[in-house]
Amino acid sequence: MKGSPDALEAQIIRSWNTNASPWARAIQAASIHSRKLVTDKAIVDAVLGVRPLRVFDIGCGEGWLARALNVYGIKVTGIDAVPALIAAAAHHGGGQFQVGDYGAVAERQLQCGPFDAAVCNFSLLGKESVESLLGAIPGYVGAGHLIVQTLHPVAACGRHPYRDGWRAGSWSGFGAEFSDPAPWYFRTLESWVSMLRRNGLELLECREPTAPESNAPASVIFICKTRLPIAD
Amino acid sequence: MKGSPDALEAQIIRSWNTNASPWARAIQAASIHSRKLVTDKAIVDAVLGVRPLRVFDIGCGEGWLARALNVYGIKVTGIDAVPALIAAAAHHGGGQFQVGDYGAVAERQLQCGPFDAAVCNFSLLGKESVESLLGAIPGYVGAGHLIVQTLHPVAACGRHPYRDGWRAGSWSGFGAEFSDPAPWYFRTLESWVSMLRRNGLELLECREPTAPESNAPASVIFICKTRLPIAD
Repeated sequence: MKGSPDALEAQIIRSWNTNASPWARAIQAASIHSRKLVTDKAIVDAVLGVRPLRVFDIGCGEGWLARALNVYGIKVTGIDAVPALIAAAAHHGGGQFQVGDYGAVAERQLQCGPFDAAVCNFSLLGKESVESLLGAIPGYVGAGHLIVQTLHPVAACGRHPYRDGWRAGSWSGFGAEFSDPAPWYFRTLESWVSMLRRNGLELLECREPTAPESNAPASVIFICKTRLPIAD
Repeated sequence: MKGSPDALEAQIIRSWNTNASPWARAIQAASIHSRKLVTDKAIVDAVLGVRPLRVFDIGCGEGWLARALNVYGIKVTGIDAVPALIAAAAHHGGGQFQVGDYGAVAERQLQCGPFDAAVCNFSLLGKESVESLLGAIPGYVGAGHLIVQTLHPVAACGRHPYRDGWRAGSWSGFGAEFSDPAPWYFRTLESWVSMLRRNGLELLECREPTAPESNAPASVIFICKTRLPIAD
């Protein structure tokens, strides 16, 4: 991938602004097979497992996860950088929603919290934006939890070398109404675990939601808690 | 895989007794490509990284890792269930070696320790034997480290469903002098991380040694330390 780091990060936001409408329709029609089959339930179960009362849904999109958690009495605040997605989320309700990018979260510019848990469901796509976001998580959740679901690095590597780097996006498998796919920053499992730890997060579980009889996991879910300030 | 759990565990030991001589020759001739290229250096680096003075090499085989660590002034005690491999290790020197199976380690029947770190290099092959072994590690290393290298579950799953279970072994890629391959217990990454944690071990790093330009890791290395007795 060519492009400066800042340009690639900006391209992610631009792409989601471009595709907000078809994305919201796809989510609401539950037309993404892997989500419907495996990963939606997996992230809801993972969040419920840490028994939070207040959840920060970072990169909430059109808000389906907030609504799913709200059914269990959980108060959810969702943020997303894409105004059209936040408008869709607010329209459906089930939480409080506000427009904000990860820079705003990292710099604590948002009026929200504290929370018992933060969740990022397939929403950590960039490089520096993700690093600085994670560093801010303990400030929002105190001694609470962070739950991240993302593509499983080993299963999603494809024919590229297995190492960190920017990759071109694709809407392959989505409809013709999607365009301008966003680049994304590939991280190995080693890099994910390392990044979590150096941002003050201890890995408790590493779940691998897998479709029945599949020979590879559909995603990976990291369940972390804020580390006590003890040196290794 | 058919067979009682005890029979499968016994079959592992039987197979290694059968193949001890060709195995020792293969290791000493450095004829296993992936080991020579990637995983041997990776495990030595991982152990050196925790700066131990005394290391417990569990399932040491013919002792190459003990000798490699001894070069750095580390005192190594190696145990293995296979007498012929221990005899080869003692012949080459570089550590203290004794015959013992994982049951003996788990039940603290061995006269050895304490250690700063324990290492299991491709030596955790069974089911219950491994579970009970790990539970005993904190007793040997105190507040020290455990380092495990094993096949990478996602990369090594093959065409089987991605879930825990006994699998048939194979000497495919090895010479005709190898026979009676041992069954082994496949664990997902989720299961490995979970098993380490419930045995009192905190995962610090999850390294993925990878051959240059390969699109999958050659192995996974878990670097853990004994957890302080704090509830989640």
